[in-house]
Amino acid sequence: MNNIAEANYVASAVVPALGNQFIVDLYECNCERFDDLEWVEGVMVEAAQRAQATIVDVVFHKFSPIGISGIVVISESHLAIHTWPEYRYAAIDVFTCGEVLDCEAAIAHLGAAFGARQRSVVKVARGSTEIITRRSPPNPCLVPTPAA
Amino acid sequence: MNNIAEANYVASAVVPALGNQFIVDLYECNCERFDDLEWVEGVMVEAAQRAQATIVDVVFHKFSPIGISGIVVISESHLAIHTWPEYRYAAIDVFTCGEVLDCEAAIAHLGAAFGARQRSVVKVARGSTEIITRRSPPNPCLVPTPAA
Repeated sequence: MNNIAEANYVASAVVPALGNQFIVDLYECNCERFDDLEWVEGVMVEAAQRAQATIVDVVFHKFSPIGISGIVVISESHLAIHTWPEYRYAAIDVFTCGEVLDCEAAIAHLGAAFGARQRSVVKVARGSTEIITRRSPPNPCLVPTPAA
Repeated sequence: MNNIAEANYVASAVVPALGNQFIVDLYECNCERFDDLEWVEGVMVEAAQRAQATIVDVVFHKFSPIGISGIVVISESHLAIHTWPEYRYAAIDVFTCGEVLDCEAAIAHLGAAFGARQRSVVKVARGSTEIITRRSPPNPCLVPTPAA
């Protein structure tokens, strides 16, 4: 682990928001299992578990000749990955609502599992509560539809 | 359409990259059908089609009491949506690799369909080819695994 670069965290301004999205770029990954669909899916599922997320659905696809796309839908939003094994690069999103999930645990797991020697992590606030509070008139959608 | 605010595009620095991610925040949406799973899924699928994307998988879930999460997996990466009907807000990602897709057509469709009176669109370059070129040693993953 000593040669694993520390994540370069760039946080957006601290804005009260409905959700937070961590944009994670992993470079110079170990690529032995980078094109192994089952392994990549397992890494992403474990990341969601380490974040204490509730998994709703898991969808992964392998492309020809190489490359994997996958989504872990969670009650709190989603995790997504796209891999470019030929460039030893993976683009990952960790998108959550609320403040209860441990996104940093998920991101640390992802960086370690892929052996990324260079990481960029950018946190983006999604759904500014300031804009919502200032601009939204009363909302009929507040009334949930009855269960079928 | 006259009262629909123009998208506020904020582009990241022009960086040659493997992919581009448009982070789309839609505020003050018309919410009549905002919690209609089939309708929201249709809007997202049409957005992918307007971008000229190749759809691989479509996964949508409705949460209790309100709110929808959905992903359209495309050969060129993915579109994702999370809705907060109670706040008339939707968080959408349009993530594509390559330069051939018409992401602006997809985003225009989404803004119009949801009747968003305020939009924020931020374009994020994913997978800097400058970093990849500078840092990556020869890569055994370039050799595709044989088909089963």
